[in-house]
Amino acid sequence: MADTYIRVSLPAVCFVWQIAMVVLFGVFIRYNEESDAHWPEYKKKQNITSDAENDFYYRYPSFQDVHVMIFVGFGFLMTFLKRYSFGGVGFNFLIAAFGLQWALLMQGWFHSLDYNTGKIYIGIENLINADFCCAGCLIAYGALLGKVSPVQLLVVTLFGITLFAVEEYIILNLLHCRDAGGSMVIHAFGGYYGLAISWVLYRQNLNQSKHLQGSVYHSDVFAMIGTLFLWMFWPSFNSAIANHGDGQHRAAINTYVALASSVLTAVAVSSLSHRTGKLDMVHIQNATLAGGVAMGASAEFMITPYGALIVGFCCGIISTFGFVVVTPFLERKLKLQDTCGIHNLHAVPGMLGGFISAIVAAAATELVSTLGLEGKFANRSPGTQGGYQAAGTCVAIAFGLVGGAIVGFILKIPIWGDPADDNCFDDEVYWEVPEDEETIHPVLEYNNHMTHKQQDM
Amino acid sequence: MADTYIRVSLPAVCFVWQIAMVVLFGVFIRYNEESDAHWPEYKKKQNITSDAENDFYYRYPSFQDVHVMIFVGFGFLMTFLKRYSFGGVGFNFLIAAFGLQWALLMQGWFHSLDYNTGKIYIGIENLINADFCCAGCLIAYGALLGKVSPVQLLVVTLFGITLFAVEEYIILNLLHCRDAGGSMVIHAFGGYYGLAISWVLYRQNLNQSKHLQGSVYHSDVFAMIGTLFLWMFWPSFNSAIANHGDGQHRAAINTYVALASSVLTAVAVSSLSHRTGKLDMVHIQNATLAGGVAMGASAEFMITPYGALIVGFCCGIISTFGFVVVTPFLERKLKLQDTCGIHNLHAVPGMLGGFISAIVAAAATELVSTLGLEGKFANRSPGTQGGYQAAGTCVAIAFGLVGGAIVGFILKIPIWGDPADDNCFDDEVYWEVPEDEETIHPVLEYNNHMTHKQQDM
Amino acid sequence: MADTYIRVSLPAVCFVWQIAMVVLFGVFIRYNEESDAHWPEYKKKQNITSDAENDFYYRYPSFQDVHVMIFVGFGFLMTFLKRYSFGGVGFNFLIAAFGLQWALLMQGWFHSLDYNTGKIYIGIENLINADFCCAGCLIAYGALLGKVSPVQLLVVTLFGITLFAVEEYIILNLLHCRDAGGSMVIHAFGGYYGLAISWVLYRQNLNQSKHLQGSVYHSDVFAMIGTLFLWMFWPSFNSAIANHGDGQHRAAINTYVALASSVLTAVAVSSLSHRTGKLDMVHIQNATLAGGVAMGASAEFMITPYGALIVGFCCGIISTFGFVVVTPFLERKLKLQDTCGIHNLHAVPGMLGGFISAIVAAAATELVSTLGLEGKFANRSPGTQGGYQAAGTCVAIAFGLVGGAIVGFILKIPIWGDPADDNCFDDEVYWEVPEDEETIHPVLEYNNHMTHKQQDM
Repeated sequence: MADTYIRVSLPAVCFVWQIAMVVLFGVFIRYNEESDAHWPEYKKKQNITSDAENDFYYRYPSFQDVHVMIFVGFGFLMTFLKRYSFGGVGFNFLIAAFGLQWALLMQGWFHSLDYNTGKIYIGIENLINADFCCAGCLIAYGALLGKVSPVQLLVVTLFGITLFAVEEYIILNLLHCRDAGGSMVIHAFGGYYGLAISWVLYRQNLNQSKHLQGSVYHSDVFAMIGTLFLWMFWPSFNSAIANHGDGQHRAAINTYVALASSVLTAVAVSSLSHRTGKLDMVHIQNATLAGGVAMGASAEFMITPYGALIVGFCCGIISTFGFVVVTPFLERKLKLQDTCGIHNLHAVPGMLGGFISAIVAAAATELVSTLGLEGKFANRSPGTQGGYQAAGTCVAIAFGLVGGAIVGFILKIPIWGDPADDNCFDDEVYWEVPEDEETIHPVLEYNNHMTHKQQDM
Repeated sequence: MADTYIRVSLPAVCFVWQIAMVVLFGVFIRYNEESDAHWPEYKKKQNITSDAENDFYYRYPSFQDVHVMIFVGFGFLMTFLKRYSFGGVGFNFLIAAFGLQWALLMQGWFHSLDYNTGKIYIGIENLINADFCCAGCLIAYGALLGKVSPVQLLVVTLFGITLFAVEEYIILNLLHCRDAGGSMVIHAFGGYYGLAISWVLYRQNLNQSKHLQGSVYHSDVFAMIGTLFLWMFWPSFNSAIANHGDGQHRAAINTYVALASSVLTAVAVSSLSHRTGKLDMVHIQNATLAGGVAMGASAEFMITPYGALIVGFCCGIISTFGFVVVTPFLERKLKLQDTCGIHNLHAVPGMLGGFISAIVAAAATELVSTLGLEGKFANRSPGTQGGYQAAGTCVAIAFGLVGGAIVGFILKIPIWGDPADDNCFDDEVYWEVPEDEETIHPVLEYNNHMTHKQQDM
Repeated sequence: MADTYIRVSLPAVCFVWQIAMVVLFGVFIRYNEESDAHWPEYKKKQNITSDAENDFYYRYPSFQDVHVMIFVGFGFLMTFLKRYSFGGVGFNFLIAAFGLQWALLMQGWFHSLDYNTGKIYIGIENLINADFCCAGCLIAYGALLGKVSPVQLLVVTLFGITLFAVEEYIILNLLHCRDAGGSMVIHAFGGYYGLAISWVLYRQNLNQSKHLQGSVYHSDVFAMIGTLFLWMFWPSFNSAIANHGDGQHRAAINTYVALASSVLTAVAVSSLSHRTGKLDMVHIQNATLAGGVAMGASAEFMITPYGALIVGFCCGIISTFGFVVVTPFLERKLKLQDTCGIHNLHAVPGMLGGFISAIVAAAATELVSTLGLEGKFANRSPGTQGGYQAAGTCVAIAFGLVGGAIVGFILKIPIWGDPADDNCFDDEVYWEVPEDEETIHPVLEYNNHMTHKQQDM
């Protein structure tokens, strides 16, 4: 049995990193004009007459929806294992709480740094972006669920946020790709990052924990809380940082219909894959979301509502098929253990989303591409933009794979308190688990009974 | 035992209907001006100078609240059965995901069709209306919970959405009734639609599944998630499509106080109905919501806050009384099996809500009715409007009863894979249910023990 | 065994008080201008040209977030006990539903009464304040969880809301303290109110119910729903009634980062306090929220993002330390039984929040304090304001302690149907609890087995 003593490492990492955050925030982070008490002065100086210029509800409702997806959505989606619900929702909480602080800094340095003052000025939109940034790491956690220690997860987060900020800068600011809902920068990156880590951390004897790698009835219901909050708020996710006005409207509509379409095809394939047509909760919990992932990059495009339906249609099928066929194949042949199946929900649909956006951008008429994206394509033909969208997707995947491999090797150093192969998927390792009367009685009983039986003999 | 093989029918229905949606969306559905990338051109043409004219957050926060009610609210409310939580939340998800697509089309044809271009132009408000439309079918599902197959549910949804769009058109556009929160068009219609179907599908020997027609401790807690999200967001539901400005404010306030009042009277009657005053979770989960249902039609009226309190007061009593007395009576005497008691939560309070709106409209002073409803009554006296409100309620009930009876007979055709009488309320029939250690051990144990006992003899 | 018969008292209290609400609402409560159908007239009279002046979404999204915190946040946080989840979420629902009505009246009399007409005019902002007011009583419920009857809880609420409205009036309107997120008026008051009641109601033999005063696996997961909705929406809580514009932005940002910081230090201390570093769900469920409580009073101040991080850092530590050391100490030495540990989550962080706001206010530059708080400090120096903030905190605590002691003695009158010492933390007392197959079988089995064993002998 591995040494899962984390009483030194976990508090040390939490304290040291949190103190580092305080210091770095002290040096770098300030309120932006809209959040600063000097706003009335600024307003006068800039000749702003309307209070609507500083309306709190300009993007705040979207922020809260995204926030719910990160903490309740991802958190509860990972409670499906029978004895890893504490770790699923609890470590998700820890990762995101650390990640968003580090993301405010990393994204700040790349996007909001004022070179005159050397400060990062933050407002509500930075909070949304920080939450987005965390999503990448939480996706990666999906592949690692139950097999790593919380200290390892914090390391995954530290590097994940850093890599994210760099690839995001390259894709959005250098390549000028459009990716409002993060098909590439969040899902493809996060998916391949997690898969690469998991591949390096392959556990030969994981089947020793096989009895815990499944759900019980109520843990599946808990996971549906996560699924539904992700599903419902995905239109907000894809529209949160889209261009105000028609761009946001379109992003919400496209995502809404794509997700609806994914549900029907996920149900269809799930039913097809069982002897008598029974549905599998794993598919309903995950593959129904594939349409939202795939719509990310092109949500604000003029993809048309039926285009969005087709995207959802195909991704629901591909994702469910992935759960039925590809994940077992990857585990057997590629030695890739992917607890939540992020390959099917994030990596592949994210990659497809990137390529779909390339096709849609390339197919855009000059007029629409100019208008619809507020002149962002203005210096490029639609075809060129399409090429860049595809290139951006490849950059995201490359960052995920290479970064993940490196982080994986770092995590192999035997100092992080990770569980042994026969100890995975078990909250007992890192949590004080209450004695569960319902489970304990039968076991006691069983033992009594056995004793009794033996006495009889 | 009935044949519950759905491996052909369920995928076939999902695929065919989803493909039909893609085709119909392709032919009919386009972005409206506010969601279209040509908005800047349109804006110039219409001499619109302010960006506020296309603000995303104009109704979007209400949309998300309603969306949560449909998927988490209705979904989790139906997880209360001990072994039908997967079906409760999962089929709710399936119904709504299909229903909203079909609703965008049906409501589009009736309300948003542009006769010049032959297209339906959609925006955020259409999404809210589509969600509303699904609510009718989800209410109907409440009566059928545990007794029908997912294929049957999709049929219920197809016809339910169609009927909804027609009755809504008659009530709102022909009779010019006011029904912002849908007491008539959603709750009365949906309630009687479900009851009529359930009445036709009466199962003589349902008591063979009696052991599963109840809750366990944690399934009741899950159901409270549904109750609370419905309860909390009901002010958004009733105000989502009310007139902007004072109408929305009033709708939210009225619904908020009516719901609070329902909670106290539901608790009081629940306690009264037990020998020592214990509360029944069924009442808390359902009857506390009756005030919101009944306020639907008159939420935007000048009913006054104490008027709203009185509505909530009475409906909390009536609804709880319904659960205690009427539902068992209906089952015994009318052969009407209503799993969730939608008769008490939707049908009756919805009908009452319609009649309350008739009284409030008739009692309105000329001034208020003109002002408060932006001239919508302008050509009618308050008394006349009151008459129309009552007539609208009757139309909704008639559509529900007649439509439900017809759909019920369609569902009796033995091709839909519905469960046998001794197989109801059981997820095993349509879901791969995880082996639950907690439940399996005792049973195994019990069997072992029995064998053992027999050996002793 | 105590007499827990509440079939008379509970319905009587609910009916009488609800009727009183109807009458009082009828006499006092009216729609304000923005919610009244006469708005178009008022608008003309006041020369208001823009519809934005009456925008529904001005504060409504914040209202809904706060509403979720009250009902789902507080409600599910209290489901952690193994057999008191019905009471946790159900009585929370009852308290808040009554409390918000009474709060609309009490706060109305103190803050919104028009002396000419003798009416209280309400709008959306009053609903937010009524929800805030309930929070105080729900915090108090945390200390009493499992040990009182629903009738007693309604008494606690009646007095709690009354005291709240008075202390709020003194602190905000007489002392002119700033307390946007309610560190003093909500958390310090509510915390000490609950602790004082609990201290008076000390139960000598509570250890007779010790076997129920803990969680089971899934009840801890339910409680995480509460934790996360509180945590996520806390930025909305602290900014809901802050000054529009930069004040709200700042309140949201400060709360967001303070909460993130609390998570890391709570995890660190939790791990430190266990032999091998395992985490305790109680700490994760509660102490992670301490930063939000403590930021309440100074959320809208120019505390700077790193200042907010430091507040969260310290409060995460203090709160977790409280759960590990102080709560057991208080129970042993001070005879204070605090079921949810509100001392550590609300009382102490709330008090600290008040004093932090005193320091921040005193340290503000003249300019910032004038600008940032819209001239509210204009007639005072920052130092003086600091003194008043500290004084306000003391007033809140004094009201809590004295009021709580008095209410505690009222609750000792033996007419309220409270449970006996060996009957606490048990839903069986006030709820019809479903027979839980999972728990019943083993017990039956155990009995059978015993009989069998005896037969063998």
